[in-house]
Amino acid sequence: MQFKNILKVKVARHAHFNAAHRLHNSNWGDEKNKAVFGKCNNPNYHGHNYKLIVEVTGEIDQETGYVIDLGILSQIIKTEIENRFDHKNLNLDTEEFKNLNPTAENIAVVIYNILRSKLDYKYELNIKLYETERNFVEYGG
Amino acid sequence: MQFKNILKVKVARHAHFNAAHRLHNSNWGDEKNKAVFGKCNNPNYHGHNYKLIVEVTGEIDQETGYVIDLGILSQIIKTEIENRFDHKNLNLDTEEFKNLNPTAENIAVVIYNILRSKLDYKYELNIKLYETERNFVEYGG
Amino acid sequence: MQFKNILKVKVARHAHFNAAHRLHNSNWGDEKNKAVFGKCNNPNYHGHNYKLIVEVTGEIDQETGYVIDLGILSQIIKTEIENRFDHKNLNLDTEEFKNLNPTAENIAVVIYNILRSKLDYKYELNIKLYETERNFVEYGG
Amino acid sequence: MQFKNILKVKVARHAHFNAAHRLHNSNWGDEKNKAVFGKCNNPNYHGHNYKLIVEVTGEIDQETGYVIDLGILSQIIKTEIENRFDHKNLNLDTEEFKNLNPTAENIAVVIYNILRSKLDYKYELNIKLYETERNFVEYGG
Amino acid sequence: MQFKNILKVKVARHAHFNAAHRLHNSNWGDEKNKAVFGKCNNPNYHGHNYKLIVEVTGEIDQETGYVIDLGILSQIIKTEIENRFDHKNLNLDTEEFKNLNPTAENIAVVIYNILRSKLDYKYELNIKLYETERNFVEYGG
Amino acid sequence: MQFKNILKVKVARHAHFNAAHRLHNSNWGDEKNKAVFGKCNNPNYHGHNYKLIVEVTGEIDQETGYVIDLGILSQIIKTEIENRFDHKNLNLDTEEFKNLNPTAENIAVVIYNILRSKLDYKYELNIKLYETERNFVEYGG
Repeated sequence: MQFKNILKVKVARHAHFNAAHRLHNSNWGDEKNKAVFGKCNNPNYHGHNYKLIVEVTGEIDQETGYVIDLGILSQIIKTEIENRFDHKNLNLDTEEFKNLNPTAENIAVVIYNILRSKLDYKYELNIKLYETERNFVEYGG
Repeated sequence: MQFKNILKVKVARHAHFNAAHRLHNSNWGDEKNKAVFGKCNNPNYHGHNYKLIVEVTGEIDQETGYVIDLGILSQIIKTEIENRFDHKNLNLDTEEFKNLNPTAENIAVVIYNILRSKLDYKYELNIKLYETERNFVEYGG
Repeated sequence: MQFKNILKVKVARHAHFNAAHRLHNSNWGDEKNKAVFGKCNNPNYHGHNYKLIVEVTGEIDQETGYVIDLGILSQIIKTEIENRFDHKNLNLDTEEFKNLNPTAENIAVVIYNILRSKLDYKYELNIKLYETERNFVEYGG
Repeated sequence: MQFKNILKVKVARHAHFNAAHRLHNSNWGDEKNKAVFGKCNNPNYHGHNYKLIVEVTGEIDQETGYVIDLGILSQIIKTEIENRFDHKNLNLDTEEFKNLNPTAENIAVVIYNILRSKLDYKYELNIKLYETERNFVEYGG
Repeated sequence: MQFKNILKVKVARHAHFNAAHRLHNSNWGDEKNKAVFGKCNNPNYHGHNYKLIVEVTGEIDQETGYVIDLGILSQIIKTEIENRFDHKNLNLDTEEFKNLNPTAENIAVVIYNILRSKLDYKYELNIKLYETERNFVEYGG
Repeated sequence: MQFKNILKVKVARHAHFNAAHRLHNSNWGDEKNKAVFGKCNNPNYHGHNYKLIVEVTGEIDQETGYVIDLGILSQIIKTEIENRFDHKNLNLDTEEFKNLNPTAENIAVVIYNILRSKLDYKYELNIKLYETERNFVEYGG
């Protein structure tokens, strides 16, 4: 049996990575950095358990009943995001945040850009990133 | 007191059902089914606690302050979805998945279609279905 | 380093308040109120832990990497919402619900209107309000 | 097949009730009540979504594999606790808290005493009660 | 620096497996099975997302600061429990429940016995198993 | 009204802090540290959202109905734990972990010792610390 019409469905997969970071604008002096970023500017870093939700929207494949094989999506997230950021210092250990302030907003955009380049363009992509249980950001291109 | 403008609000209700299923395409041989669906193709079935979020969007009724009476919505979900799928084998015990592969995507579409036919068309409907704590799908017609 | 394009990102912040309320339409008699609102019409009130998610969408500021400073947003939520509604009887202790039925739908609209007036109009605002773990409403203007 | 030894297992069931209350000691004046109980002393009440976890420990019955039939336990919780406290004002609508301050501690003890009298004494009983997501109390007799 | 006394600490690790099962006592007829186990007796099975919490108590090793390396514990849980039960039909696909009713109580005891045999006896072991978000069992030998 | 007997109740309060750390034994060379602690040994640190549950057991005070005023307990946790560890690098910014490996086990013991010295000895104290959503440790002296 098949549905007659084209059906667009969103599928989503959770992932996690634990990282250190600090917020800092290298164009500013210490005083202004401290004033703007407060304790997030700590020169010795602090850290978070980041929870990532990757949402992919597309048509259901009539033969598999899948929009995308979540095993394949999980593997892409593991290879491209978890291996890159998990147990890392975002400011020191990653190319992406050497010159980009690792706010949750910027991390979400960076993750979107990485995953966008790995996914077929027939899919829409949306990224939700929890920095703590009480704060999240969302970016969809 | 009443708000002057027409206000569209989304209201949502969670529900649950626990079911067995297997992923299988009867047009394929065992080898291809195994290759595509992996352990989800186990001929003896496995199972999930499905968590369902039914989202209904409409105007606030000025007399009740409700978009829809959630007690009535809950009763519809219980009668139409929980009674149909809870503690069932989706492949063997339900008409809906006798000839349709019970992927999370297809289950969400089936639930949408059932509830859509029971709700006044003045309401928009959206279905979110968690197959595990880390995977969900979403369908809005 | 800066992203070349203008990037719209949603940021969100959770908050909580615990309040008593009853659902009641003063234009109706007791019998109709009881029939429509059931146990939510209890004249002695009942209560909830309300969980509020405030979502603000805007462009990433290139200097801070923030859409909005969440410390400032948290302070606005605390001053305008938590201080107003936390440990209050919504029907008796607040101006907003003296003549407006405190359904989750109406509470979400009231919170939206309060916060909308405190936030720069360059931001889009969306309110999600959980009345219990299994029910929520959402309003975006 | 049966296990050779007597096996003691704990089984637990979650339940919920939403209620209004205020903290107040009628032997004290208003000033002392306000000083001790702060905003929890609001004369117009506030409220909570209480989450209750009832834990029953006993031997596994060799014929059923159950310590206790959770359907029966759920029914006892519904009849004895949810029907008594859900959508009630604990101070005004219940016999139990007419003369007993409805702190989370006292509510847990009252629930323990009610359920203890309804359960066979071969079972150990433990009560966990969340007043908010961040506070709980526990009482085991 | 080292703590002077021997310090006993509990460490815990969560894991998950998704399985089908039915509750059935083969010494009983269909009618009695249906009466006792209700919809859990469905001959075509139903299923759950089981959430497992393995708690290991022991002394902190002064050189590592660990009670037990959680990476090693995770690997044992994966090899011994997840590989054995995940995406399986407990009644049909496992030796453990061929002749033992797969109630949550019995599953917890079986998991305890398997892990107990793989862990050094200097450790105390406790098993917590959620069958749904609202039910769990606990067994500690 | 008062309960006749002395009633021991546990009350608990959740708190949070976000910190950077690395696991390292300064008596070992780099190779052994890397072999034992793996990616947790990253010299540039990584981080976590630590979730802390402080459990205090004592008798219910007959006048207040409290075991302990949770507002006071929260204030102690804020002053002694959150202010000390939140947005800090545990290895570099704190006295406690200058010479003690900041494993979850050791952090729990340190927190226990700090809070134990601030609480009346009529109370029993137990500490539960989540390093991630899937790992926790527990220490009770």
